[in-house]
Amino acid sequence: MTRAPAVEFWFDFGSNYTYLAMMRIEQEAARRGVRVAWRPFALGAIFKSFGWETSPFVLQKAKGDYVWKDMERQCRKAGLPWRKPTNFPRSALLPLRVALVAADEPWIGAFCRAIIALNFAHDREIDEEAVVRTVLSSLDVDAGPVLVAAKSPANKEALRTQTERARALGLFGAPTFLVGDEMYWGNDRLDDALEAATRGDTTGP
Amino acid sequence: MTRAPAVEFWFDFGSNYTYLAMMRIEQEAARRGVRVAWRPFALGAIFKSFGWETSPFVLQKAKGDYVWKDMERQCRKAGLPWRKPTNFPRSALLPLRVALVAADEPWIGAFCRAIIALNFAHDREIDEEAVVRTVLSSLDVDAGPVLVAAKSPANKEALRTQTERARALGLFGAPTFLVGDEMYWGNDRLDDALEAATRGDTTGP
Repeated sequence: MTRAPAVEFWFDFGSNYTYLAMMRIEQEAARRGVRVAWRPFALGAIFKSFGWETSPFVLQKAKGDYVWKDMERQCRKAGLPWRKPTNFPRSALLPLRVALVAADEPWIGAFCRAIIALNFAHDREIDEEAVVRTVLSSLDVDAGPVLVAAKSPANKEALRTQTERARALGLFGAPTFLVGDEMYWGNDRLDDALEAATRGDTTGP
Repeated sequence: MTRAPAVEFWFDFGSNYTYLAMMRIEQEAARRGVRVAWRPFALGAIFKSFGWETSPFVLQKAKGDYVWKDMERQCRKAGLPWRKPTNFPRSALLPLRVALVAADEPWIGAFCRAIIALNFAHDREIDEEAVVRTVLSSLDVDAGPVLVAAKSPANKEALRTQTERARALGLFGAPTFLVGDEMYWGNDRLDDALEAATRGDTTGP
């Protein structure tokens, strides 16, 4: 039994550089015959484990100022709409829980793109049940049972466990890509990660 | 009077990502008809202004661990030799002072590449007069007068002033490229910076 080579895509919908990667990863991976394993986690909890109360782009003013310029240029280059969020980093707990419970659904990619575009192309809050429900419905997904599963105690615990695994793996930001044991950090490394997956550079299990 | 479009290249020889950019910038710029303005500065002083006693790659262990993996892969991809420095970040005050005094010399590019390769390809200390003297001599430069000028009080003050200008411009890391008023951070943005210089995207003076 051979499975397609895989890239693990670790993300949080609050992360702006995740926006650049999330909008293209499914298509880029498919083009190379690589499967995407969707790995939502709570980046804020990782930052807290470093003693940071918020994003380094907020804590470091000079870097933060630069990041918004860079995002503007990178989105223009990628042909993506961009609107600087008036609230950053945005809470995304409910959509992350949905992404976790739906990680293997055929609509996971479309769901993720719709949620993160609300944050970075439309400057909208995303951690709201009405918003998530509307996105699910627009994808012809029956929102009711998905939301029940997403909000179950077991799934809440599963997101905490997945975040703890991220920390144990040494993740320190998003997006992060894992190909076997090899870690690639940032949208700027997505193509390297996909190339590695194509070549089968998986020293991991 | 028209001058070639220019990219300002802000660097410190202690910075590992500067190694990736420094080894290729002169050739890449020449290919596009872009002039490189060499801007040495003391990155450690910028970090101190943020309250950091050393590089964030040392202060943040998870990120640091990643960076050395990333450097190994990026150097392989670029065909550059790589040896993880046993001392990081290395002090580079004397070579930075030489680079400042020699920024407009025809041998500046070759000097910079030789110094930074000692740090990241040969794991050698670089803030030593004997080392700098050997590098200058290997470039057929009369080391004596260059070292006298580099160590003059006026040039020491000039490096402090240049570093203060870096801080005032909002620089927070290296390598950083300026094209007019537009800032580009990191080796991953060098090509974007050169493209901008070629197009004449200079909103600055």
